[in-house]
Order: sequence, then C-alpha cells, then structure tokens
Amino acid sequence: MIDILAPQPRAEMESKVKILGISGSGRKGSFNSALLREAASLVPANATLEVFDVSGFPLYNTDQEVSPPAEVRAFKSKVKEADAILFATPEFNRSISATLKNALEWGNRPPSEDVWEGKPAAVVSASSGPRGGARAQAVLRQIMVDLDIYPINGPELFLGKAQEAFDQDLRLKDERTKETLRVLLKALVEWTVLLRGRSGSL
Amino acid sequence: MIDILAPQPRAEMESKVKILGISGSGRKGSFNSALLREAASLVPANATLEVFDVSGFPLYNTDQEVSPPAEVRAFKSKVKEADAILFATPEFNRSISATLKNALEWGNRPPSEDVWEGKPAAVVSASSGPRGGARAQAVLRQIMVDLDIYPINGPELFLGKAQEAFDQDLRLKDERTKETLRVLLKALVEWTVLLRGRSGSL
Amino acid sequence: MIDILAPQPRAEMESKVKILGISGSGRKGSFNSALLREAASLVPANATLEVFDVSGFPLYNTDQEVSPPAEVRAFKSKVKEADAILFATPEFNRSISATLKNALEWGNRPPSEDVWEGKPAAVVSASSGPRGGARAQAVLRQIMVDLDIYPINGPELFLGKAQEAFDQDLRLKDERTKETLRVLLKALVEWTVLLRGRSGSL
Amino acid sequence: MIDILAPQPRAEMESKVKILGISGSGRKGSFNSALLREAASLVPANATLEVFDVSGFPLYNTDQEVSPPAEVRAFKSKVKEADAILFATPEFNRSISATLKNALEWGNRPPSEDVWEGKPAAVVSASSGPRGGARAQAVLRQIMVDLDIYPINGPELFLGKAQEAFDQDLRLKDERTKETLRVLLKALVEWTVLLRGRSGSL
Repeated sequence: MIDILAPQPRAEMESKVKILGISGSGRKGSFNSALLREAASLVPANATLEVFDVSGFPLYNTDQEVSPPAEVRAFKSKVKEADAILFATPEFNRSISATLKNALEWGNRPPSEDVWEGKPAAVVSASSGPRGGARAQAVLRQIMVDLDIYPINGPELFLGKAQEAFDQDLRLKDERTKETLRVLLKALVEWTVLLRGRSGSL
Repeated sequence: MIDILAPQPRAEMESKVKILGISGSGRKGSFNSALLREAASLVPANATLEVFDVSGFPLYNTDQEVSPPAEVRAFKSKVKEADAILFATPEFNRSISATLKNALEWGNRPPSEDVWEGKPAAVVSASSGPRGGARAQAVLRQIMVDLDIYPINGPELFLGKAQEAFDQDLRLKDERTKETLRVLLKALVEWTVLLRGRSGSL
Repeated sequence: MIDILAPQPRAEMESKVKILGISGSGRKGSFNSALLREAASLVPANATLEVFDVSGFPLYNTDQEVSPPAEVRAFKSKVKEADAILFATPEFNRSISATLKNALEWGNRPPSEDVWEGKPAAVVSASSGPRGGARAQAVLRQIMVDLDIYPINGPELFLGKAQEAFDQDLRLKDERTKETLRVLLKALVEWTVLLRGRSGSL
Repeated sequence: MIDILAPQPRAEMESKVKILGISGSGRKGSFNSALLREAASLVPANATLEVFDVSGFPLYNTDQEVSPPAEVRAFKSKVKEADAILFATPEFNRSISATLKNALEWGNRPPSEDVWEGKPAAVVSASSGPRGGARAQAVLRQIMVDLDIYPINGPELFLGKAQEAFDQDLRLKDERTKETLRVLLKALVEWTVLLRGRSGSL
C-alpha cells in the first residue's frame, strides 16, 4: 500500500474513489459519527472519505423542495460529486433516526434533482445496546431500494455495546472492529469501481 | 348521534375520549392532514379529535433532549393528556416521513419523560400513488412496538390515488373512505375504553 | 401461588386461560421449542399451556386449502379452542422460518375458516447468535396485523447466545430469562382476560 | 432479435446467461408462475430462463440439512449452475409464502453447501389485490441481504389486480406489463454480466 500522505500525480488524485460519510446522529459523543471519523483513516489508498453533518437541517417539506436552504444545497452537491456513500446509523425505536431520514428526503427531491440514483453504498451502525442497530439497517436498506442506491451486502458491521469498543476520546480501540471496517471499506471501493462499468441506470 | 356543538354537562365532557391527530406531512395541500381534519368531524359523540402540527420542530438531538424547545414541550403535554393517537402518515421512500419520525423521537425521550407508553392508537395513510402507504404503515407499526403504543389492527385505511377521493378544497368526497374512517374512529374509541381497564403498563 | 397439580373444581378449570404454544423449529434440540416447554411450567395458576408441533405439515397450497390434511385440521381446531397464542420463533435469514409461516398460512385460509382472528398473543425468540431473533419478531408482528392477532408489546424476550442459557438437557438454567418468561406469561394472561371484554372483532 | 430456437455454436450457447425462475406459489392457476412462463419468452437473446417448481418440498429442518431429499438436491444443483435468479412471489399475509421461504432455507444450508451466495437476482410479484405484493418484496429483499444475493433495484414489477392483466389461459395480455418484464430481464442480464467481473465474494 502506498503512503497516502505522499504527494501524488494529479491524475491519480482525480481517479480516487470519493466516499461521502453521513451519520444519522448529531450528538456530540455519537458512536456513529466516531465510526465515520475512524473510517476516514482506514480507507484504502485509492479512496478518500469526507463526512457531512446533516443534523442541523430543517425538516424536509414538499412545499420547500424547489428552493432548499443553502446547507441542504451544499449537501446535495457533495452527494452528487461523491462516488459512494457510507452511512452510519443509530437505531432509534427500531428504525433509522429522523436526522438520517430527513437527509435522504432532501436528497431525493424534487425528482429532477435527486442525487441518490445509482450510488454505491455501505452501511454501518453502532449502539450501546446488544443488538447493534440491525433493525435500523434493515429499514435503511428498504429505503435504498426506492432511492436506487446500491449497497454492498457485506461485510456487515453492527457494533453493539459500542462504549466498550471506543476509548474516552471516541477513538476505536477494538482491533476486530477496525479490521471489519477496513475490509468493508475495501469492498465498497471495489464495488464502486465495478459499478462504474454500468451503462445507464441499473 | 347527538349534536357535539351543544353545551354539555362537565362530567360528560371530561369523560370524552380525547384523540390527538398527528400528520406526518407539513405540506399545505397534504392529503394526510386533510384526512385528520375530516376525521375530526367523523368521531363518535363520546370523543373529540384535535390535531397538532409537528412539521416545524427542529431535528431531535440527544444533547438537547433534557431541555426541548417550547413547541416540543407543548406537543409532549398534548400527547400526555390524550387518551388515544390517530396517526396520518405519508409514505416517503417506503417509510414514514422524517417529520413523523422526529415527533416520535422527541416524545420518547428522555426515558423518564416518554409520553407514548401504553397509548391506544390507529393509523391511516394517503398517497397519490396506487399503494396508499402500506409500507409506511408497516414501518410505523414496528416503531410503535418499541414505544409501547397499542394500535388497532383494523379497519385499515390505505388511501391510494388520494387526489380522486378529495375535492379541490381538500374535503373528502369519497363516501366509502368516509365510512371507513368513521368505523375506524369508532373502533379506536372502543379500544381506548377497553384498555382503560388495564392494571399497570401492558 | 396455588399448586397447579392439585384437583380443582370444574368451573375453575374451565375458566382457565388456554395458551397454545407454537414453535417455528422442528429441530430436536431447538432452543425455541425448549422455551415453550419451560413456559408450560411457568404459566400463572389461572392458565395452561399446551404445545402443538407444526414442523411436519406439508407446504400450504391454495388448491388444497378447502380440504387440508388431518394434522392441519387438528391444528386449526386447537388454535380455535385456544384463548391465546405463544409463538417461539427462530430467526432464519432475518425472517421467521418457513415452518412457522406455513402454520400461519394454513390457519388463515380459506377466509371462512380462519382461526387467528382476534387472538391475543405473545412472541419469544431464541438464537445462538448475539441478536436473539429481533428481526424475525419484527416480521412476525407485521404478519400478525394481517391475521388480526393482538400481541402484547412487552416484556420482550430475544434470547441471544441461547446455548449459555440452557443446560445440556435443554432446561433453562438462566434465572433472569425464567423471570422474563414468567412476567411475559402473566402479562399475556392479563391481556387475554382484558380482551375478552371486547364487543365484536376489534 | 435472433431466433432462439435456431442452432447455435457451442461457445455462444455456453456463454448465455442462465436465469433460474422460482415461483412462491404452487397453485395451478398462479399468476406468479404465469409471470415466470411469460418471462421465459421475453428474455434477451443472450439469456435463457428455466423454471423450477419448489412447491412440493418438505419443510426445511436443520436435522435433515446434511442429507436433503432428492428433489431438494436437484434444486440446489440448478441454483448452483444458474447465473441469475428471477423470483416471482405472491404476498401471503404481508410476507413471502412459506413455499418460497422454504426453498430459500434449503438452498442456504448447511453453510458449506449454500448455493445463493453472490447470485444476481430480480424480483416480480403479482396479486389479485391492488397493492401487487410490495410488502412481500420488501421482506424478500431483507432476506436476500443475509443470503448475499444481489438484486437489481429496478425496474420493479408489482402487478396488482393481476386477473385483469392475464387472459383465461394465463397468458399475459397487458402490453405494458410485458414491456416492464422485458426491460427488467434485460437489466438483470446486464447486471449479471457486470457482476461476473467481481473478484471474490462481494
């Protein structure tokens, strides 16, 4: 693996797989946001990962979809430019959070300005309980069919008892979780490269 | 049926089943909000229905849950006072809207100030497409298990092609839908009265 | 608690809440079937629990629904007589097993001979993995809406790492699980008694 | 389009995309099985579609998974040889049928003899009701994540009021449905060819 900090020729930079990380939680000490920060340091050499904070958006309203607020417009541009999406979702009441659902809605509308269509994606989740967000991921995957997002099936990361995997600075100390995240990011990048070969909107 | 506008003895007023209507859409021309307005005129004589607009709330954030904004506090008080809930949910991307999910989250937290536990409920949905929100209702019902809300199973109302059921003032012109709504409200009220007999939190 | 083996007056016997236990697994060493056997010894004094094995049924086929095989007819009679149902479901591929789905289908058809309508119910699940069947329960609850079955919301039992809770004779050694099961059965019985008060088919 | 009955060079035959059709209904007059028969005549020239009847299998039982009955073994061989799967599923009680779930379970076990992993797939559904099986498809897609099957997102076919789309010989007379099926099969074949480029098990 090459050193990602070393200067690189422009062409190589440009061909890098750009992953956009989206966390479903705006909580300061969020384990899901922490997973994304960690992921940024675990992406393969031919990829980059940037995180966008969607927790301060106003609620999506159809009446405002033609002229969304500036922060939503900035978000939609970022999604459009991204080659792939990494979702980190908490499980609130057996579903994804309103914060994440809201970002998905703004990105999807109006139909002519949908930014999700055809995006490769991966999903991770963390929770303090034992089940690690399995039901939230299931709901998110159902939504992704509608948005025409193409997630990888695995490896899956349902990080239960997340407080035991992170240290007090919210850095991931659990090596097994790190390795899963690394493998997952590699799979996402390969998937993204593969899907570039598509003709039209599969 | 007695005239619900006529003055009534205080005792009778107080024993009425208070239903709170919550719409998942803040759109001005929302079919779901229109269903709730219609429901208010179709409740049985021993019930009342009031609607609360949840579409302007800020996104729920765990860091703010101990001191929610005033409008959220007002909402939580209304839910607490209500004997039953009537949800009207659009289907956005095969799930409920962020707007509705957000209201559910604020109402549920922090644990000591949850307002949903044990509430009887019913669900209706309207959409312009042919499927009428069946998948949104399924997601909502899954969430209600976690919130310990007790919905009736039926009658169900999945109002597809809603634009054909309403006139241009968003009044329900379809008699069959009106009748379903009337039967549903009656079932909800009976269910609520039945559940009053519970000891503790079933 | 009175001794349930002591002779009892006929009237009291007849008023007992009859719970039918249905396991989604036909495996000899099934943890779910073991949970049901355990439940039979933990029911409150005013209830009984009998288990019916549904793992040998032929696959449901609409063409045969008017004249189901003898074992299916026997099953449907048992469900009809039961006051409440206790489902114990494994999670196979994030859903309930074909074995359990098959029993639900036979019991539901033809419409004139549906035996599920209005039944109070509870659900438990066990698995050797860490998540304990949460997604299977979610699918089952969605099906129960259609069947007009009324499950209690809680307490819930998702028994993960089930092999640690049972001894080698498949008796439950974990006291906390036993207690949850006991509370759940008590809640189911109270729920069943409450729902007897319904007029018509809620 | 070339005549698929004309003799073809061996190499070309071998490179054809082999699709296996699986219907969730064993009913003689099944609309879903009829959709598969129709699909067989609508596949692109570089593909073939064969249907396997899974409606007579015994119920899956873990105790028998190491030595499945002959018909199940034959089925698993067919799946293994197939390049892609086309599922046609009825919606029974808001989920897929026991018949389909059962075939999925037999194919998945024991782990060393799983035949689903990595298969490209597509899903169609038909029902006499208005909703066309949307909830059954959602449950099936959730199961496919676990089986590591890769379905296309669209086009989707939820054939509601199926009796109006078929003639009395169960041939599809509705041209729009035919066209959707044709486009869906083409997308499935392209997807399958694309996924052949994968290294390892994505």
